[in-house]
Amino acid sequence: MLTKPPGSLGRLEELAIWLAQWQRRNPPRLDRIEVLVFAGNHGVVAQGISAFPAAVTMQMVANFAGGGAAINQLATVAGARLRVVPLDLDRPTADFTKEPAMEEEAFLRALAAGYDSVPAEADLVCLGEMGIGNTTAAAAIAAALFGGGGMGWAGRGTGVDDDGLARKRAVIDLAVKRHAGILGDPLQVAAALGGREFAAILGAALAARRQGIPVLIDGFACTAALAPLGMLRADALAHAVAAHISAEAAHRALLDKLGLEPLVDLGMRLGEASGAAVAARILRAAVACHTGMATFAQAGVSGKL
Amino acid sequence: MLTKPPGSLGRLEELAIWLAQWQRRNPPRLDRIEVLVFAGNHGVVAQGISAFPAAVTMQMVANFAGGGAAINQLATVAGARLRVVPLDLDRPTADFTKEPAMEEEAFLRALAAGYDSVPAEADLVCLGEMGIGNTTAAAAIAAALFGGGGMGWAGRGTGVDDDGLARKRAVIDLAVKRHAGILGDPLQVAAALGGREFAAILGAALAARRQGIPVLIDGFACTAALAPLGMLRADALAHAVAAHISAEAAHRALLDKLGLEPLVDLGMRLGEASGAAVAARILRAAVACHTGMATFAQAGVSGKL
Repeated sequence: MLTKPPGSLGRLEELAIWLAQWQRRNPPRLDRIEVLVFAGNHGVVAQGISAFPAAVTMQMVANFAGGGAAINQLATVAGARLRVVPLDLDRPTADFTKEPAMEEEAFLRALAAGYDSVPAEADLVCLGEMGIGNTTAAAAIAAALFGGGGMGWAGRGTGVDDDGLARKRAVIDLAVKRHAGILGDPLQVAAALGGREFAAILGAALAARRQGIPVLIDGFACTAALAPLGMLRADALAHAVAAHISAEAAHRALLDKLGLEPLVDLGMRLGEASGAAVAARILRAAVACHTGMATFAQAGVSGKL
Repeated sequence: MLTKPPGSLGRLEELAIWLAQWQRRNPPRLDRIEVLVFAGNHGVVAQGISAFPAAVTMQMVANFAGGGAAINQLATVAGARLRVVPLDLDRPTADFTKEPAMEEEAFLRALAAGYDSVPAEADLVCLGEMGIGNTTAAAAIAAALFGGGGMGWAGRGTGVDDDGLARKRAVIDLAVKRHAGILGDPLQVAAALGGREFAAILGAALAARRQGIPVLIDGFACTAALAPLGMLRADALAHAVAAHISAEAAHRALLDKLGLEPLVDLGMRLGEASGAAVAARILRAAVACHTGMATFAQAGVSGKL
């Protein structure tokens, strides 16, 4: 028994056990933390639902490569490797108010790209995304899977104004109506309303599961990308922990639907796996306590009265 | 303007600004993080209010020196220095159900020990404590300052059973009654019901304030130690941030009384500055983003539409 009252490290203890179980190794290890950021472009941006132009997706990928984005700094302080995977940025998905965002082939190709990007040597994978317009896609997926419409799920994303928010809500309602025939099939929802970066996140989560690698889920878009998987099988996300609760309005409701309990609440709403990278530092603290502490006997400390 | 939507790093941005303001330096720096753990013994332990014997305070101080405690691991992963300051452990404070825990001289000596333990070179101080019985002292201070009695403030501490909890509540009610004459004077409350480690925490917070060093407050006992300071002057704790919300039942209420918003909620209830050390990692993330990110212009990223 370690020199602390049982349970007094709270969630740090649960996290150390969770890591050990999925890694099938005690003590667990965090020598290699992989931050994977998938980037995609969205045809629905033509509907005027984002505060930033679609060109920003590719520009931010260049910024990631140059080391100037928030996630570069956060991955470094977390002692993690950062890998950015741009997915056909010059070919946005189709506008899902008119047709499915992706045909089956495009969906599966993006899913495979995500699956293949998880290195077998990783001890933890932090999943994140970049894609102008993708909080609209995320809200549409949530509305398709759980009902509630644009009013229930649309938020301000990167900072859309009141008119933009109204358009976003209308676009989501239109999309759910347009794809009414496939709402019962989570994977078809993922293809029809998602983006390539969402499909890749889904693929990466599957690869991590297969290899016993624990996963940290970033914010609203990342959670929405994984929601179809959670709907397919109740325990499909058991190897994943929600890193944080985003300031994007509907994130709390989406986490609740999936039974996920966020690790921290710092009012972040940036994406890029930024929340996951911050939470990875908490996992390091959990592992350090689990690994480095003395027992009552080793330290000569008296037990309970 | 950094390459992110304004405000999208949420509390990380506020924290970077808060650090810069108190350090009077932009960007702020976290080269030297000092974890200070003050240890004291409490005469009120004779009333049977703790799950562990008083001898554990000194044994844990030895465990800190040997590197086997949770805070050793957490300070290391936070890149912080740990200093443990035992305060007359062989001379517990008086039993405050019978007389003031400390006379003025003992109180001021402990306060001065805390004041002198803050190095001028520190960029951040994490305050914490170790003291068997001190959640009873903490609850007594809260009851003395804010009313509500033992029922409102006593929790299970390191794991006291139902009988112990009932004794704890009764002891707090008795103490508040015994010291009814001084309840209007926060510093007299600190001396009559606190412990040497609490007085030292108060002194350290004053020293940090004077030197422009930001402070992270640990859990319930540490917050209670600082509550008299918060009652003396509304902004006396403006240079301090509550690191976390402890699983000790009354911590939320105490933070609310002092207007403190905790950074994380991880269900921890260990003390030893353990929560503050975890939160220090979040401050490092905040500083890294503030310092390392590119601007829109530097990165060639388009602005808002």
